[in-house]
Amino acid sequence: MASGSSVRIAVDAMGGEGAPTVEVEGAVGAVRESEGRVEAVLVGREDDIRAELEKHDHDGLPISIAHASEVISMGESPATAIRKKRGASVVVAADLHARGEVEGLVSAGNTGAVVASSLFGLGMLENVRRPAIASMFPTIDRPSVVLDVGASIDSRPSDLLTFGAMGDVYARHVLGRREPRVGLMNIGEEETKGSELTQAAYKLLAESRMNFVGNIEGRSFLQGKADVVVTDGFVGNVMLKLVEGVLDILTSALKGPGAHQDFEMLRSQFDYAEYGGAPLLGVNGVVIIAHGSSSAKAIKNAVKVAAKFVDTDLGGKIVDRVSEASVTNG
Amino acid sequence: MASGSSVRIAVDAMGGEGAPTVEVEGAVGAVRESEGRVEAVLVGREDDIRAELEKHDHDGLPISIAHASEVISMGESPATAIRKKRGASVVVAADLHARGEVEGLVSAGNTGAVVASSLFGLGMLENVRRPAIASMFPTIDRPSVVLDVGASIDSRPSDLLTFGAMGDVYARHVLGRREPRVGLMNIGEEETKGSELTQAAYKLLAESRMNFVGNIEGRSFLQGKADVVVTDGFVGNVMLKLVEGVLDILTSALKGPGAHQDFEMLRSQFDYAEYGGAPLLGVNGVVIIAHGSSSAKAIKNAVKVAAKFVDTDLGGKIVDRVSEASVTNG
Repeated sequence: MASGSSVRIAVDAMGGEGAPTVEVEGAVGAVRESEGRVEAVLVGREDDIRAELEKHDHDGLPISIAHASEVISMGESPATAIRKKRGASVVVAADLHARGEVEGLVSAGNTGAVVASSLFGLGMLENVRRPAIASMFPTIDRPSVVLDVGASIDSRPSDLLTFGAMGDVYARHVLGRREPRVGLMNIGEEETKGSELTQAAYKLLAESRMNFVGNIEGRSFLQGKADVVVTDGFVGNVMLKLVEGVLDILTSALKGPGAHQDFEMLRSQFDYAEYGGAPLLGVNGVVIIAHGSSSAKAIKNAVKVAAKFVDTDLGGKIVDRVSEASVTNG
Repeated sequence: MASGSSVRIAVDAMGGEGAPTVEVEGAVGAVRESEGRVEAVLVGREDDIRAELEKHDHDGLPISIAHASEVISMGESPATAIRKKRGASVVVAADLHARGEVEGLVSAGNTGAVVASSLFGLGMLENVRRPAIASMFPTIDRPSVVLDVGASIDSRPSDLLTFGAMGDVYARHVLGRREPRVGLMNIGEEETKGSELTQAAYKLLAESRMNFVGNIEGRSFLQGKADVVVTDGFVGNVMLKLVEGVLDILTSALKGPGAHQDFEMLRSQFDYAEYGGAPLLGVNGVVIIAHGSSSAKAIKNAVKVAAKFVDTDLGGKIVDRVSEASVTNG
């Protein structure tokens, strides 16, 4: 989409823990701050959404409602839920996106359901077999992006190569990193270390045109030795929840007076509200997964991130980069 | 070995970063504090060890030296190193153990070389296909033991069942936990979540006689929801280095005045010096892997832990428990 025109983003208004209150407030904020560049389509129970909208001054703002009668809760099995609840807000949002009525979607709902409905509704980008959720992680330097953190389990080596290419594009065009350093999460520095998966993925990444910096271990990861860290979704999800958990414990432990600046720096790097959620890369569309406990600010930023993805044609850039990576590797 | 008689432990004197100084000091300390119950055999370059021994009052203490001319460094490939350096201290120590001249060994050297020389020299316990390194992790409750943290990559479901049985024995007889709660590291609470490996392992663990508490995620892990957490060595090693890394960063960040009691509690739970290292479970012998940066106190405690393993016949108890687990699962 050419810069200057407006971008339509669907917001799953029934998704997160604070739904629909924070979703509506966040969407209104994003539309207002974009000065009309961003249009929001709030997806969910019309009455509930309308009641929330009443709380805000939204006169003249390009905000509409797409009714969806059902809600998928956090505990539901994603595959079953999206089959049975065709009227669920996230399914309706993905359908709107698939039909071209919006150019991106944001949801703070059940992550598995967001992934499943996006896969089902949008399909994959050319040459991408499986999608990846890209999440920011704190380091002592600047944040690194890790992918996948939970969309694709039991990946193949070629999937990790694709994740590298998608992470490279994300780091360049969203984070503004030049020649992003792409690393492979592993349990040793040497090429021969690790599982069958990582050993094979190492070879593919080393032969690619990416700025591959080799294996990354837990410590070098936290020292910010790579901009992009590639891993299977199982390992990435364990990492995500472990680091979240440690920071949660320490946040409550370290409350009170005293300037724990370095800790605050780490903590703020992990602030979903700032990043506005994690993109689901590889699907044929723009999907931003916001944290289940998102604030209105987080939703607002997620909508802005979705619009930025549309503006920069991140999907097209991913297709180019992935095809380059595959060609280089025969 | 009957309680009351003495226990002979080999200490790889050339292993860690502070070798042989901390190894000799630690071994002398363990022998002295055991009042002769523990005998130490220091394995490594005789002249170097003798020079270190001169610094301590060791008159009358049952400490001997077994000469080993070579050293395997931290960066060497374990498989190659133990093949080429048959005179390496860790290989000689494993040989002494295999010949029955000692009943256990402690090394702070190259972990892969300790694992490889132990496997090669000692072989496996009955019905154990692959070994596991069991490491203590901090939680907000009390420490949990995670296994495997790096000995066995690309595990099978039955390996994870065995790790559960070995962790159960360790938690009962070394940590003193009654009916230890055994959990499976996974990326969701439900039975159907996770990789092919964890889904299959879930079934085996659920059918076993262990006190299986189901899937454990990063957050519930840190809340101490399980005494024993079972995982493939790749994931466990990533977890170990990530938590080590976070605590390292925060230790330097949080230096200075102020009582960060909860942080100190977490940190101290992760103190290798207190635990004296991580046991390599499943091999037909007693092998304690101390941290590469072990202090003399850590080595001392590692030697005591090795002696305790011998005294409680942990290997025999593991064989019983593993066979029970296999029988229950057909």
